[in-house]
Amino acid sequence: MSAFGMHGPGQLTGPVVIVGTGLLGASIGLGLRGRDVEVFLSDPSPTNQAVAVDIGAGLPLAELQVRGHDDGAVRLAVVASPPDVTAAVVLDALRRYPHAVVVDIASVKAGILAAVTAGATPEELERYVGTHPMAGREKSGPVAARGELFTSMPWVLCPGPAASPDAVETARTLAVDLASTVYEFAPAEHDEAVALVSHLPQVMSSLLATRLQEVPEHALSLAGNGLRDTTRIAASDPDLWIQILGANAGPVVEILHGVREDLNRLISTLEAPKAPGARLDLAQLMSEGNAGQARIPGKHGGPARSYAWLTVLVDDTPGQIARLLTEIGEIGVNVEDLRLDHSSGQNVGMVELSVLPSKHDALVEELSERGWRVLQ
Amino acid sequence: MSAFGMHGPGQLTGPVVIVGTGLLGASIGLGLRGRDVEVFLSDPSPTNQAVAVDIGAGLPLAELQVRGHDDGAVRLAVVASPPDVTAAVVLDALRRYPHAVVVDIASVKAGILAAVTAGATPEELERYVGTHPMAGREKSGPVAARGELFTSMPWVLCPGPAASPDAVETARTLAVDLASTVYEFAPAEHDEAVALVSHLPQVMSSLLATRLQEVPEHALSLAGNGLRDTTRIAASDPDLWIQILGANAGPVVEILHGVREDLNRLISTLEAPKAPGARLDLAQLMSEGNAGQARIPGKHGGPARSYAWLTVLVDDTPGQIARLLTEIGEIGVNVEDLRLDHSSGQNVGMVELSVLPSKHDALVEELSERGWRVLQ
Repeated sequence: MSAFGMHGPGQLTGPVVIVGTGLLGASIGLGLRGRDVEVFLSDPSPTNQAVAVDIGAGLPLAELQVRGHDDGAVRLAVVASPPDVTAAVVLDALRRYPHAVVVDIASVKAGILAAVTAGATPEELERYVGTHPMAGREKSGPVAARGELFTSMPWVLCPGPAASPDAVETARTLAVDLASTVYEFAPAEHDEAVALVSHLPQVMSSLLATRLQEVPEHALSLAGNGLRDTTRIAASDPDLWIQILGANAGPVVEILHGVREDLNRLISTLEAPKAPGARLDLAQLMSEGNAGQARIPGKHGGPARSYAWLTVLVDDTPGQIARLLTEIGEIGVNVEDLRLDHSSGQNVGMVELSVLPSKHDALVEELSERGWRVLQ
Repeated sequence: MSAFGMHGPGQLTGPVVIVGTGLLGASIGLGLRGRDVEVFLSDPSPTNQAVAVDIGAGLPLAELQVRGHDDGAVRLAVVASPPDVTAAVVLDALRRYPHAVVVDIASVKAGILAAVTAGATPEELERYVGTHPMAGREKSGPVAARGELFTSMPWVLCPGPAASPDAVETARTLAVDLASTVYEFAPAEHDEAVALVSHLPQVMSSLLATRLQEVPEHALSLAGNGLRDTTRIAASDPDLWIQILGANAGPVVEILHGVREDLNRLISTLEAPKAPGARLDLAQLMSEGNAGQARIPGKHGGPARSYAWLTVLVDDTPGQIARLLTEIGEIGVNVEDLRLDHSSGQNVGMVELSVLPSKHDALVEELSERGWRVLQ
């Protein structure tokens, strides 16, 4: 098998079977096909499966024998089913492909491991590795699949205690071949981590956005970036999140108890804002928020660091932003982050840029000299 | 007086006195000086005042008489003091400048109007207009001041019932001269609106970020854009927010009661995630969040609309992003929003772009043909 993809020689050996050809399953298929790995696809929805085959994510599972393999030849089965049915599909795959490593990709891990452990033989358990690729889900279905979906995104391996080192290595190779950044967490530790960094933000954003339902429209005309940033993920797909929150209810609710305590204290404080200690309570909320936010790691997983921001006014056209970035490149400063500011009103765009603090002042000066209107 | 600035002939007539020369006061001074309006500055901190004078925001107040004016000649006094002392400074300015319109710019309005009403004569009340320019506050102090700080940002006028039409018109002229987008709200209506679109997001972001304080560092290594977006404003300045939340406690706490009800319901649901109705409860939270989020107006105050997003992989250099935007400009598609994706791991940047849904597919195709790696 020829095995030279864009990231160097492929490590994974097929045949690989992918069960569930939605966005993630089909994307895995595309990525592996790009490395010349043999891939066979199966989905309870014939339409999903046909679309995944059509876009080149693999061959229909029925072709496995046509291509000279039997079920015992399958080296890896990837279960990419909805979280609700993942454990059952994993157990089925462990039985059907007796020599395959079976990997699932559901976003909650401890419950699935418990269900698989309850239903599998010791030999089967050695071949099972739960994983969680943390890649985009704004769109769903195989039509939206891309082989590069996982590039530079975290892919968390969560092997149970019975998983064999070889099985873990196969799961790791899958993630590496698809250009992910690999992490290893114990299943319960993973679920607690995503409860905090993924499920809690979703809950808080939804709770906040819920409040916007019944306010007069003119109040919303004052909305700025603060509201937009905090509510962006409130637009997420309900179906998926119902399954995720249901499956990770324990860790999420434990964090929410802490949120409720803080909220109760804040409400008491604001009900008597002139009482002694009220200012101190508010100061504590704000500074604890400061401290928590400062712990979030920087871009590319580097340490948390503070960048210096500047805002440049531009005519609201793509050509202007391109020109600005071209000039910043000429000046030799690296842009760490970039956002367009959604101010309402006039058609003047604001480009917010963050750079290393040591570069900030010189960049402001240089851009101003070149005629850009720079704020801050 | 010569009065041709970048936005056409100046309307405002000086002399103008600005009391409080922090970021906002000094920026107002700079903006007015850019339109050749005579500005005099006063600040309890001699350093703040000296810096504001040095950057060209106006002359020291002591020069008012040197320049041939007396207090009776002052046409407008802008009170840009911290919210806590605003009402007292407004009352002082109404007395000291008997022919001036007095405008304050604090971010909470009803309490200040009540305090001014209690302390002012009927004649003085006619000359007072509370306002709220909603402009950036990431940095503070006159050093960060820019005359264009208010450009295309909302500036809310909140006149009390006793304010004269002439006084309101003067306040409006100030906002228009500084290129703001002017809104008019009743003071209580303003406070309710900002409680929702500004103060609630701050509280929710701080409550969320607070939870990040005591988790293991490796859990945070899985943080993605969802967490980053929802906690960005948790980095805000505590001192300012203690004053804002204290001054607008009533409207904020009323909204928080609703949040607490929803949170209690969610906690009950997640404590018994297999109970009948649990999925329906989660579905309701998510879909109410969807509905609230969808009400936030679009860029430039236009109606809320959904854009189609695509993600392009680029080498993580500013030159690449500039080239991408240049090519999108050539293709003739307008970028509605743009974000850099902070995935951890490898140095591949992801540029998320939103465009009109009707342009999405053609843009994906055209960029792919030009060799860009496009996801979704």
